[in-house]
Amino acid sequence: MKNTSLTAVAIGALALATPSLGWAQDATPSVEPAAHTAYILNTVLFLIGGFLVMWMAAGFAMLEAGLVRTKNVAMQCTKNIALFSIASIMFYLIGYNIMYPGDAWLVQDVIGGPSPKGLEPVGGDDLATGYSASSDFFFQLMFCATTASIVSGTLAERIKLWPFLIFTVLLTGVIYPIEASWEWGAGWLDDMGFSDFAGSTLVHAAGGAAALAGAIILGPRIGKYKDGAVTPMPGSSLPLATLGTFILWLGWFGFNGGSQLAMGTIGDVTDVGRIFVNTNTAAAAGALAALVLTQLMYGKVDLTMVLNGALAGLVSITAEPLAPSIAQSIFIGAVGGLIVVLTVPMLDKLKIDDVVGAIPVHMFAGIWGTIIVPFSNGDADYMTQLIGTASICGFVFLVSFVVWAILAAVIGIRASEEDEMQGLDNSEIGMEAYPEFGKGSQFI
Amino acid sequence: MKNTSLTAVAIGALALATPSLGWAQDATPSVEPAAHTAYILNTVLFLIGGFLVMWMAAGFAMLEAGLVRTKNVAMQCTKNIALFSIASIMFYLIGYNIMYPGDAWLVQDVIGGPSPKGLEPVGGDDLATGYSASSDFFFQLMFCATTASIVSGTLAERIKLWPFLIFTVLLTGVIYPIEASWEWGAGWLDDMGFSDFAGSTLVHAAGGAAALAGAIILGPRIGKYKDGAVTPMPGSSLPLATLGTFILWLGWFGFNGGSQLAMGTIGDVTDVGRIFVNTNTAAAAGALAALVLTQLMYGKVDLTMVLNGALAGLVSITAEPLAPSIAQSIFIGAVGGLIVVLTVPMLDKLKIDDVVGAIPVHMFAGIWGTIIVPFSNGDADYMTQLIGTASICGFVFLVSFVVWAILAAVIGIRASEEDEMQGLDNSEIGMEAYPEFGKGSQFI
Amino acid sequence: MKNTSLTAVAIGALALATPSLGWAQDATPSVEPAAHTAYILNTVLFLIGGFLVMWMAAGFAMLEAGLVRTKNVAMQCTKNIALFSIASIMFYLIGYNIMYPGDAWLVQDVIGGPSPKGLEPVGGDDLATGYSASSDFFFQLMFCATTASIVSGTLAERIKLWPFLIFTVLLTGVIYPIEASWEWGAGWLDDMGFSDFAGSTLVHAAGGAAALAGAIILGPRIGKYKDGAVTPMPGSSLPLATLGTFILWLGWFGFNGGSQLAMGTIGDVTDVGRIFVNTNTAAAAGALAALVLTQLMYGKVDLTMVLNGALAGLVSITAEPLAPSIAQSIFIGAVGGLIVVLTVPMLDKLKIDDVVGAIPVHMFAGIWGTIIVPFSNGDADYMTQLIGTASICGFVFLVSFVVWAILAAVIGIRASEEDEMQGLDNSEIGMEAYPEFGKGSQFI
Repeated sequence: MKNTSLTAVAIGALALATPSLGWAQDATPSVEPAAHTAYILNTVLFLIGGFLVMWMAAGFAMLEAGLVRTKNVAMQCTKNIALFSIASIMFYLIGYNIMYPGDAWLVQDVIGGPSPKGLEPVGGDDLATGYSASSDFFFQLMFCATTASIVSGTLAERIKLWPFLIFTVLLTGVIYPIEASWEWGAGWLDDMGFSDFAGSTLVHAAGGAAALAGAIILGPRIGKYKDGAVTPMPGSSLPLATLGTFILWLGWFGFNGGSQLAMGTIGDVTDVGRIFVNTNTAAAAGALAALVLTQLMYGKVDLTMVLNGALAGLVSITAEPLAPSIAQSIFIGAVGGLIVVLTVPMLDKLKIDDVVGAIPVHMFAGIWGTIIVPFSNGDADYMTQLIGTASICGFVFLVSFVVWAILAAVIGIRASEEDEMQGLDNSEIGMEAYPEFGKGSQFI
Repeated sequence: MKNTSLTAVAIGALALATPSLGWAQDATPSVEPAAHTAYILNTVLFLIGGFLVMWMAAGFAMLEAGLVRTKNVAMQCTKNIALFSIASIMFYLIGYNIMYPGDAWLVQDVIGGPSPKGLEPVGGDDLATGYSASSDFFFQLMFCATTASIVSGTLAERIKLWPFLIFTVLLTGVIYPIEASWEWGAGWLDDMGFSDFAGSTLVHAAGGAAALAGAIILGPRIGKYKDGAVTPMPGSSLPLATLGTFILWLGWFGFNGGSQLAMGTIGDVTDVGRIFVNTNTAAAAGALAALVLTQLMYGKVDLTMVLNGALAGLVSITAEPLAPSIAQSIFIGAVGGLIVVLTVPMLDKLKIDDVVGAIPVHMFAGIWGTIIVPFSNGDADYMTQLIGTASICGFVFLVSFVVWAILAAVIGIRASEEDEMQGLDNSEIGMEAYPEFGKGSQFI
Repeated sequence: MKNTSLTAVAIGALALATPSLGWAQDATPSVEPAAHTAYILNTVLFLIGGFLVMWMAAGFAMLEAGLVRTKNVAMQCTKNIALFSIASIMFYLIGYNIMYPGDAWLVQDVIGGPSPKGLEPVGGDDLATGYSASSDFFFQLMFCATTASIVSGTLAERIKLWPFLIFTVLLTGVIYPIEASWEWGAGWLDDMGFSDFAGSTLVHAAGGAAALAGAIILGPRIGKYKDGAVTPMPGSSLPLATLGTFILWLGWFGFNGGSQLAMGTIGDVTDVGRIFVNTNTAAAAGALAALVLTQLMYGKVDLTMVLNGALAGLVSITAEPLAPSIAQSIFIGAVGGLIVVLTVPMLDKLKIDDVVGAIPVHMFAGIWGTIIVPFSNGDADYMTQLIGTASICGFVFLVSFVVWAILAAVIGIRASEEDEMQGLDNSEIGMEAYPEFGKGSQFI
């Protein structure tokens, strides 16, 4: 594979184009190809980045299917494929143009105007954009869907299907697009200098805030907090949860790397390379930090914490995966992992029942990652980062809280006690996830 | 997808940079880089598209492993990895050259001449093709394998291993290549103006037709249809089935996007972007249509129908993923999802036992997708689409029927009653898929 | 991520090439774009190749989780995510620079100098390398992690977590980088003309040798070899093992294809195409060879052998995936598959307990693949291949043996008898992988 003769590749490539070949002495340079080639390469980044982030939907589905009990696994699978589908439709119908209103703001720099997103013509016609608008839509859609995926795990095992889906319609069509427009749509936070490269706050903390609002209104699972003690309700399949984590880890290269938004120059593609390395390093550091800390705290390694530690590392580096050195990425990711281990019990103390740990992983580590951006990126400042993450978390939490409260009041969001005890697969889906395996007790 | 006009891609790429365009009169244009770069980018599309479609083999394996009962799961895994391997060898040995005979037809425009496919030399030597022939072989092979994957699920739980593998040899080596040559190999359907962009009919309906023929000859599982009632035989693992669906969804971006066959121009890569969006949208619409319809029909959401709805949406858009608007893609995919929900019970009425629903998903939705092409693509017409899909389904069904009948007569294709009751894992594979979990009853 | 300043990307791209910049008047040739474009494409190969190989970590995790018994599944998941994380940190800290010392050898051509790997600056600054150094680090790191993954399966079900992790630190930080430097770091084996394209020996046989040393010192599982008989201890989930195999198969396109190290010329990208085809073909041949041979030997197809046969085919072609014809790839891969079927019982006779068959798959097939390189590649010779693979296997085995022996003596590497009987999930992780399913007997 690699050895010293590799340098010859580059030299050879240069040689191909040097005047010594004779054809260029009397030549006008090839003007067009550069812009065309850059357009193609930028589009390829969106497409590859997009399919990798799409794959994260499978990661969330497996992570959550593994971390809930067998009696709720089919429900969790249903929610995950449905929410992704809803996001795909809603982001087209109104979400994309709310998020990227251009000049069509309803409220300048705060709320974009809703309208369906049109595709560019077959064959394309606008070199000047620098990339295919369809590929950009595809990529951005996946971020919208990711935000909804985060909510699904927290509220597992007791929420009814249809209220969840209705919330997803609003989250992916309106709530996410509005807050994301503030930064990525050139809204007020972007004007202010807020910095969130790939969405530690815009996607992850926002999803976590929506989940937190839901968890508070929904209340904990029956029996979870009893007589001051926390009842463990172990997930049905740790290998599926592990698979989900690996899928998310893989998809995150698209999430962060694709957020460079261009690879038509050597500077851009080099930055994508840096982002891949930092993203991977932060995940590794988060996993190892959780591994060591759980060993120290509990005398045994806690696999679910290691998985969530890796995810927290990924969330933490997402606000700034480009600027850090590898050493800084280790620090940023490791702190993310520690945050998860330390805040999961805290939520339990507050009797906020987050089935898969999504609030610590996505919201708390997301806030951490956003606030620490100035540590590695001199263009950001701590105060603006605080304002940005507080504004977005606050906005999403409040709006979500209102929506959940209305849904709870109007149609009810919580399964009946009997349905919860028997499992939502029975009441909501009418089929078992593992009909031939043990079904577990009614209570665990 | 591929036909004789493909060569024009490369020629077009060259033309883009030739002096005849007028901008280069006083200059030797930089002709080479453009064509070289286009060659590289086209090849990259085949490679990425190809590995994504290869990944669909894992999707079928997981989908089917999840939808059969535990006692047949190892058998289903074996069949899936074996059929993919057989396709890889047979398509090399004779399939590719039957499918793309060039001038070497045995029967002009109907049956190509069989011969092994040779690789181009190391380092390549033919810029004029516009892409690496190896990458094209790799990509096309995956479509052949996909066709065989479709058959595997329908016939699960009662077919013997070796007859299935023998059929796979014929399907991947001869049957698929012949019918695919009619369109993509520039055969008689291509001459006629038939349009099937990525294979709603050539791959999916064809695979479904082969499965249908097998299901008729094989007969239903013991106890499936008794006293006029349909006995539900629920699958062993819905999360694996969900995972399989997500894998297929991901792989489909390669399936449809790669079928653009070129991304060396901004027009081509833009079209790949459009295709990604439409493919994703149709899947989402198919899933949601099945979700809503099963809720309305049965009062509960049926997860397996949602999964199959997503797949039907994907199959439906495959004949024309480029031309539709997003709104049209929603329509095309949603109808696909509805077709599945409505036709699964119909097959049961006919006592055709399709274990995973592959005939509705791949054949019925595939026919739908093919016939509806003129709705979005003005170059197609309904009559030709009807003739094309009828010809291919008819040909594959009849040939498959004969092959299955011969296999049944000569070596027997059906496991013994005792083996079927005990599960094929025991009789054919000699190992259990989940030796430590419950094995389920003998009858369910 | 996206905001209004994005338009500047396209404008910048255009500006770079327009005459208005002044550099084109006197027809300076367009030298830069060719080298720039090649740089971008080479980097893209590293990035795509890298994320595909990263995905192999999930493949090993699923393969091993499926092949161990339920009581050790969480442990196996923990080991796999932890070892990947450790590799990510150690390869940065010292591994990369030991492997690619440039002029900084500690012992010339034998031991590189350890130092952390620095990232190139944001935006990149060195076109002359021909690719982004970060992308190269990312890609190479994944090979280091793969080596460690191989060890994990062999030693399953009886090794303690922390000694395994300590060994992983040394393997990924020191042992692998040293032996890999001999060939890919331009060390003494490279000087000698040894040929190992993508690491049949450097990665796979090396990982297998480290596993073999560990298995010898660790000893077999309790009850595995009793009264001269071999007790089968079937894995908990064959579909997960199948999934793992498909994941590895997919990832291998990155492993071998990416090892071309460049795709900025049509020759290079064509070679990547050839490599994809040969890699796929060898895997298929390995699977089918194992399928047929187990049918002949045992009267039934053995799925785990088919899976391992596919992997052995992949390992076998890895030393030379470029030069062979497809027919040669079939031969090379098929022999790999046969080797596995024939040597698994041999290890059992020697009472070397390799839980997942990693030693036959990675070491034996790896040696086979390396020695057979001259069969298809005239630049290699059998004697040098023998010396190379013997040196690397010998070195890794001996050093690993010493490290395992020291670990065994100082902290102990083997779980207590009671812990092994109850399962390592209980003693080391404190949670069950499938708490609601059957736990199996204590002995199986």
